[in-house]
Amino acid sequence: MGPHPAVAAIRLAVRRVLHDVLTPTTPASVPPTPAGSPPLVLVACSGGADSMALASALAFEAPKLGIRAGGVTVDHGLQHGSDIRAAEVVSRLTALGLDPVEAVAVSVGREGGPEAAARDARYAALDAVAERHGAAAILLGHTRDDQAETVLLGLARGSGIRSLSGMAVASGVGGRYRRPFLGLDRQTARKACMVQSLPVWDDPHNADPAYTRSRVRHEALPVLEKALGKGVVEALARTAQLSRDDADALDGWAAAVEPSVRDDSGALEAAKLFALPPAVRRRVLRRAAISAGAPAGSLFARHIEEVDRLITGWRGQGAINLPGRVAVRRQGGRLVLRQG
Amino acid sequence: MGPHPAVAAIRLAVRRVLHDVLTPTTPASVPPTPAGSPPLVLVACSGGADSMALASALAFEAPKLGIRAGGVTVDHGLQHGSDIRAAEVVSRLTALGLDPVEAVAVSVGREGGPEAAARDARYAALDAVAERHGAAAILLGHTRDDQAETVLLGLARGSGIRSLSGMAVASGVGGRYRRPFLGLDRQTARKACMVQSLPVWDDPHNADPAYTRSRVRHEALPVLEKALGKGVVEALARTAQLSRDDADALDGWAAAVEPSVRDDSGALEAAKLFALPPAVRRRVLRRAAISAGAPAGSLFARHIEEVDRLITGWRGQGAINLPGRVAVRRQGGRLVLRQG
Repeated sequence: MGPHPAVAAIRLAVRRVLHDVLTPTTPASVPPTPAGSPPLVLVACSGGADSMALASALAFEAPKLGIRAGGVTVDHGLQHGSDIRAAEVVSRLTALGLDPVEAVAVSVGREGGPEAAARDARYAALDAVAERHGAAAILLGHTRDDQAETVLLGLARGSGIRSLSGMAVASGVGGRYRRPFLGLDRQTARKACMVQSLPVWDDPHNADPAYTRSRVRHEALPVLEKALGKGVVEALARTAQLSRDDADALDGWAAAVEPSVRDDSGALEAAKLFALPPAVRRRVLRRAAISAGAPAGSLFARHIEEVDRLITGWRGQGAINLPGRVAVRRQGGRLVLRQG
Repeated sequence: MGPHPAVAAIRLAVRRVLHDVLTPTTPASVPPTPAGSPPLVLVACSGGADSMALASALAFEAPKLGIRAGGVTVDHGLQHGSDIRAAEVVSRLTALGLDPVEAVAVSVGREGGPEAAARDARYAALDAVAERHGAAAILLGHTRDDQAETVLLGLARGSGIRSLSGMAVASGVGGRYRRPFLGLDRQTARKACMVQSLPVWDDPHNADPAYTRSRVRHEALPVLEKALGKGVVEALARTAQLSRDDADALDGWAAAVEPSVRDDSGALEAAKLFALPPAVRRRVLRRAAISAGAPAGSLFARHIEEVDRLITGWRGQGAINLPGRVAVRRQGGRLVLRQG
């Protein structure tokens, strides 16, 4: 008798990613493994059901492919006793046979709100661990449900299809972060833990309505499913993939066309911009603003709209001021961007 | 003292569209007006707040621009007494000074579900009225809230950014249908009716949870606003506009590149397809399937995915069968599409 279907599903998902790490089919490259030693793949584990399921599947699959499997848990220091919790996760990962296993403590700042600050601190710590061990990849336990939530959060920003594209299957330096469960639902991961008798820990933050993601998970998505039907999570996840491909293609177009709309001085020629499809023109303008010094994260759709009106609604407007003290002026049929 | 802000807002929105109808700035062309007679613009009016506000603004603005303003209401025959209701709307539109005004009765089929069938019957009737009168445009009362609902309904299909692009500002033959209120919220239209003492009729269908749109309006959107913040409707409407532009640009790219990936016999060359960005390749495949005879409405993302695997995951698969009896085969480095 084979494993429970949920266990089979999580193992297959991990096996596929490990194959991909060994023989990269995507452009993402993997750092070379120190000569002679087998490649190391780490799992980032909070102790929750998703990442415990992931750890168990990694522990099962890695040895069959000659891969060393390790684990890391991040102690965000945000809750009383989080260090004890982290030590417990370490011992659970060790019990699964992972090696090396470690806990890293981070201090979470405030920038961008509590969720963004925790995320930034977490990835910085994981990057450092990966580099210290020369890991070929770090597996993350994000499921299709997480993906659907991310798409809804992006939708609320209303800033276009890039923000609808959710999380990538591979991201980070050289595609270091891998998300084997992006096509699996949370229920499968939970079930896989149950049938393998793996203890899991439900992070109280996940149910705290002070967090936007928690409200999306526990309030918005269930009501959306009720209104729109059971396939909503899947539809959102598919939207993410399609949006990502579309955004990549349009970004590529904008990058390819940008040099041809600049004159010798580097100014943008209004007539050439006008001839572009609006979607491409706005991306070219965004690229130009960023290369002039505007910070990408502070540049919103409304900024680009305003710059675009220098092209499509020219009536002698003055300079448009963008974040990062970048001013955009139309001068004699050209857009000039300067950082003041 | 000027008009109430809500009244000023609906009039401005209509004035802009009427200007555009008189001096088209968009590629959409307007049928020539019979020589000598001023152009006629119709409002499609259900008697609800949105379209009654629209009718009142049209009645106010059109004469100032030398435009004749008329109205039409569609009797779907779906509720007892709908004919009496339609006659009442006719008399309300006449009281606003619109001329001509008429009610048209339609019979609603079943195809595509009750909402789609009613919509199809309605637009067919409006098209016929517009042609009979030689109308330059028909104004529709869709608001930003309707747009947000449409985006959510599209999101639930998970079929990509075209289905996220909602309703267009101008659509139909020659851009005949115009939606002046797409940037206004429903509350403004309602307020404008109130302060002008216009009687409005609340269609019980709009609150009937048997209809998906009604569930989106009364259940999903309020909860999304609660979870994600007040700006959700605006964010969804902005997503619609951005997605529409993006989808247009990518469709244009696919149309431009399609001839270059076909060989002399019209077959698609796999190597050339492979070199395209996935977003463009999938659109080329979709175009090819449609021109081979697959009905656009029955062609889903999963069909195109399967055809795409003949390019990206070739392992000697057999023919892929698409709707409309179109079979796609890979033969010697080429995709051949044939209707059987």
